[in-house]
Amino acid sequence: MSGEDTPAPQQSEDQVQKGQPAGEPEAEPPQEPQGEASNEAATEAATEAATAATTEAEESQPASTAANDKAPEEEAFTYRALVLTGYGGYDKVKLQLKKGRPNPRSGEVTVRVKACGVNFPDLLARQGLYDRLPSPPVTPGMECSGFIEAVGEDVTDRKVGDRVMVLERCGLWQEVVLVKADHTFLMPEGMTYEEGAAFPVSYITAYVLLFEMANIRPNKSVLIHMAAGGVGIAATQLCQTVSDVTVFGTASANKHEVIKQGGVMHPIDYRTRDYVEEIRKISPQGLDVVLDPLGGSDTQKAFNLLKPMGTLVVYGAANRLSGQRKNLLALAKSWYSQFTISALSLMHSNKAVCGFHLGYLDNEFALISGVLQKLLHLYQQGKIKPRIDSTYHFEQVSDAMRRMQDRNNIGKVILLTEPKKEEPKSKEDSKDQKEEGQNDIKKEEPKEGVETEQPKTGES
Amino acid sequence: MSGEDTPAPQQSEDQVQKGQPAGEPEAEPPQEPQGEASNEAATEAATEAATAATTEAEESQPASTAANDKAPEEEAFTYRALVLTGYGGYDKVKLQLKKGRPNPRSGEVTVRVKACGVNFPDLLARQGLYDRLPSPPVTPGMECSGFIEAVGEDVTDRKVGDRVMVLERCGLWQEVVLVKADHTFLMPEGMTYEEGAAFPVSYITAYVLLFEMANIRPNKSVLIHMAAGGVGIAATQLCQTVSDVTVFGTASANKHEVIKQGGVMHPIDYRTRDYVEEIRKISPQGLDVVLDPLGGSDTQKAFNLLKPMGTLVVYGAANRLSGQRKNLLALAKSWYSQFTISALSLMHSNKAVCGFHLGYLDNEFALISGVLQKLLHLYQQGKIKPRIDSTYHFEQVSDAMRRMQDRNNIGKVILLTEPKKEEPKSKEDSKDQKEEGQNDIKKEEPKEGVETEQPKTGES
Ligand SMILES: NC(=O)c1ccc[n+]([C@@H]2O[C@H](COP(=O)([O-])OP(=O)(O)OC[C@H]3O[C@@H](n4cnc5c(N)ncnc54)[C@H](OP(=O)(O)O)[C@@H]3O)[C@@H](O)[C@H]2O)c1
Ligand SMILES: NC(=O)c1ccc[n+]([C@@H]2O[C@H](COP(=O)([O-])OP(=O)(O)OC[C@H]3O[C@@H](n4cnc5c(N)ncnc54)[C@H](OP(=O)(O)O)[C@@H]3O)[C@@H](O)[C@H]2O)c1
Repeated sequence: MSGEDTPAPQQSEDQVQKGQPAGEPEAEPPQEPQGEASNEAATEAATEAATAATTEAEESQPASTAANDKAPEEEAFTYRALVLTGYGGYDKVKLQLKKGRPNPRSGEVTVRVKACGVNFPDLLARQGLYDRLPSPPVTPGMECSGFIEAVGEDVTDRKVGDRVMVLERCGLWQEVVLVKADHTFLMPEGMTYEEGAAFPVSYITAYVLLFEMANIRPNKSVLIHMAAGGVGIAATQLCQTVSDVTVFGTASANKHEVIKQGGVMHPIDYRTRDYVEEIRKISPQGLDVVLDPLGGSDTQKAFNLLKPMGTLVVYGAANRLSGQRKNLLALAKSWYSQFTISALSLMHSNKAVCGFHLGYLDNEFALISGVLQKLLHLYQQGKIKPRIDSTYHFEQVSDAMRRMQDRNNIGKVILLTEPKKEEPKSKEDSKDQKEEGQNDIKKEEPKEGVETEQPKTGES
Repeated sequence: MSGEDTPAPQQSEDQVQKGQPAGEPEAEPPQEPQGEASNEAATEAATEAATAATTEAEESQPASTAANDKAPEEEAFTYRALVLTGYGGYDKVKLQLKKGRPNPRSGEVTVRVKACGVNFPDLLARQGLYDRLPSPPVTPGMECSGFIEAVGEDVTDRKVGDRVMVLERCGLWQEVVLVKADHTFLMPEGMTYEEGAAFPVSYITAYVLLFEMANIRPNKSVLIHMAAGGVGIAATQLCQTVSDVTVFGTASANKHEVIKQGGVMHPIDYRTRDYVEEIRKISPQGLDVVLDPLGGSDTQKAFNLLKPMGTLVVYGAANRLSGQRKNLLALAKSWYSQFTISALSLMHSNKAVCGFHLGYLDNEFALISGVLQKLLHLYQQGKIKPRIDSTYHFEQVSDAMRRMQDRNNIGKVILLTEPKKEEPKSKEDSKDQKEEGQNDIKKEEPKEGVETEQPKTGES
C-alpha cells in the first residue's frame, strides 16, 4: 500500500486526540499512516499477496461490504487486510490489499482500525472449525479498536474522530472497516488502542459466563480453564469484584506466578497433573461453578466436579484444536465424547448447564451493549484491565497465531494494522529471513513480564 | 386412638401459646388432643386399619425410627399415621395406628404434628412414580407443622413447646414425628399451623427455581405452569418481589381470576388452548425464564420458548400422573419424549437448562435453611403468604388427594392430624357414606374464595 492511496482522514487532529492519553503510541494524528508510506517491503508483500482474490474476499465480508457505483477516485482507494484464503496452517492467513473506499450507509460508520484482538476462535476458524466464519476467502477478526473516519446518515451518537472498540462476527482484521454504528463502543479516556482491541470479546464473554449464566456470588468456588488466556484473565479479574470467590485455574506451569498474582488461588498445571484429582484434594465436595472452554471429555469432568446446585457453563471446544490442520480423527473423537444431558439427570443432581457463544448473539446487541457499559464502568474504577501479552504487526500474523497455539501467551495477543517499520538489516538477518520464507519484518518481542500493573480489586 | 394413650405434653400452656395469634384454631393448648377422646368413629376406623402392618411401616420410616428397649408404658403409646400400603389409587393410603413412643436421640426432637402439606409428588408417590419414597408400607409426607414435644441430647436451639415447621424426605403424615432438630424451622409469630404446613416445600422450591437457578431480575418474563398450585402461587408471589417481572401462568380456566389477582399478568388455559401459541402472540420473541413442572414433550416446548440467554428450570414430571394407577403407556411415552440436550446446542442457542429436586438435596440442609430464613423474612414483611385451598382431616386423605388430582385446588391442600369431630348424622347421610364405602366423616368444604387476603407486594 502506498502512502498516496491513504485517505485523508476527514477530521481534525483535535477530534482524534481528544480523549487519548498523551504519549501512548496510539495517540498519533490521523495523518500518521501517510508518514509511513516508505515501508516498501510491507507494501511489496501486501501487493503481491493481493493479486488473487480481493474481489471475492470483499464479497464475503459482512463488515466491509464494498459500496457499489464508486467514483474512480474511491475505486483507487486501497487498504491492507488479512484474508483467510483456505483452511489449514498459519500460512492460510495472508496480507492482501483491498480496493475501493467503503462508504457508510445509513446507520453505519467507517472505522480506521489501529489494533485487533486475536481470539482462540480465530485459530479454530483457520482450521475450518468455527462455524460463524463464512467460507474463505474471508477476513477474520471479531474485535478491533480505532477511530471513526466517516459516519453514515442517521448516525447521531458517533462522530468523526471518536475512538471506538468494534465487535463483529468477523471481518475486522483490516485497516478500514465498515460497521453498524451500534456495533461500536466509545473507548473511555485513558484506554489505549491495544487495550481497546483486547477488551470486548474476552470481557463480555467472561462477564456473561459469571454474572448472567453462573450467577456468581460471595463465597462461591469457580474453576477457570485456560486461566492465563484472554477470557481466563478477564474472568479471574471479574471474580475479584465479588467478595470471597475462590478461583481454581488451569494453565501451563510457567504462567502460574502471573495468574496467582491476578487472583487465581489454586493454579493447576493440567499438562502434568490430573486437574480433577488436584481439585478434589483441595475441595472434596466439588465446586459451585465450572467454566468450560475445552469441550469433549472435559465437559463431563466439569459436570461431575459440580456440587449440588452448581452450574456448568460451556463456551468453547478448544480441545478440537489439535495441530496445523483440521484433524478429522480429533473431530470424530470430540464428537463422540460430546456432552449430552437429560432433564432427569439435571433434576436428580440439582445442577445447571448453560451454553454461551457470542457468535450466535448477533441479534442481541442491546444485551451486549448493556454488558459492555457495566464493564467499562468497572474499567474506569480500575477493577479490570486487559493484560496485553504481545503485539504483532499484520505482517506477523502467523507469529501471533503461533504464540497462542503453542500455548505461550499470558493475556491477549494483539495485531497492529500499522505497517512494521523496517529496521536496518544486517546481511545475515536478511539471508535468514529469506531462507525461512517467513516474515519480512522482525517479530516484536512479546512483552512477557512487562505488564506488571494489576487492576485494583474490590467488591461490586 | 383413645384419649388416655395420648401423651401428656411436656410443656406448659404458656410455652405453646406464646407466639400464637389469639383465636387461631391452632392456638389450642397441648392437652387439646385429650379433649377429643370421644371421637369414636375415627378411633374405630384408625384402629381397624392399624391391625395389619404397623411394625413394618415403622421400620421403613426414616423420620420416626421407633426407639428400641422401650418401657412397657412407652410401648403402649400409640399415634395415628397415614400409611401407603401399596401403589395405586386413593385407597392405598390408609389411616393406621403406630405403637411405641418415639424418643429423640442426640440431635433429634419429637414433634407433635398439627397439620401436613399435600404435595404433587405425594400423588406421584402413591402411584409408585416418586423415587424418593421408600417402598410401601411407608408413611408419605414431606412437610408438616406442630410443636416440639421432646428434645434429645445436644439439642440447644429447640425447646419443648416451640412451634415449628418440618421438612423431610418423607414420613411426616402422622401425629408424632421424630426428626433431626435441624430439619425443623421455628415458625414466626402470627403464622398459623396451616400456613406452616403449607410453607416449606412450595416456597423453598419456588425460591430456588427463581433466585438460585433462574437468577430472575427486573424486566424479565417468566412462564409458571400449574400457576394456581402450591409452587405456582409461591412463585407468582416471589416474582412480585422483583420489579417489572412479567408472569405468564397456565392453569384451568376457573382459577384465572384468582391467579390474576395474585400477579399472573397473562393467565392461559392450557386445557383449551395451545399455550405456546398464546404466549407467542403476546411475546413473539419468547421468554426469559420457563419453569417446567410438567416434563415430557412440554420440556422441549419450554426450551423452544426461551429467548437467547433464557433459562429453563425443570423441576417435575406432572405429566406422568395420568390416572389412578401407574400407567405404563404414559410412562413409556414420557420416557420416550424425555428431554435431552447437548452442550453444543446450548452454546448455539445461548440457553441454560437447570434441574431442581428438593428430594435429592438431603445433604444440603445448610443451603435449605438459608433459603428458608430469607423466605421467613419475606413472610414477616407481608410479601409472601401461603394460600390455603382446603383442609382435610387424616380420615379424609383420599378427598384431599382427589382435590389436587382432579385439578380443583387453588393453593395448598392441607391435612389436619386432629380427628374429625362427628357431626350429627341424618339417616340418609350415613346410608350414603356406607354405600360409597368412603369416609366416615363428612368432608370439610374447601375454602374456595374464603382466603381473599393477598400478600403485600414490593421490591426486594
Ligand atoms: N463462547 C464464546 O463466545 C467465546 C468467546 C471467546 C472465547 N471463547 C473460548 O474461550 C476460550 C479462551 O479463548 P481466548 O481467546 O481467551 O484464548 P486463550 O485462552 O488466550 O488461548 C490460548 C491458550 O489456551 C490454552 N490452551 C488450552 N487448550 C489448548 C489447545 N488445544 N491448543 C492451544 N492452546 C490451548 C493455552 O494456555 P494454557 O496451556 O496455559 O492453558 C494457550 O496459551 C477458547 O476456548 C475460546 O474458544 C468463547
Ligand atoms: N422439584 C421439586 O423439588 C418439587 C417440589 C415440589 C413440587 N414440585 C413439582 O411442582 C409441581 C407443582 O406441585 P404442587 O405440589 O405445587 O402441586 P399443585 O400445583 O398444587 O398440583 C395440582 C395442580 O396441578 C395441575 N396439574 C397439571 N397437570 C396435572 C396432572 N397431570 N394431574 C393433575 N393435576 C395437574 C392442576 O391445576 P391446573 O389444571 O389449574 O394447572 C392441579 O390443580 C409438580 O410438578 C411437582 O412435582 C417439585
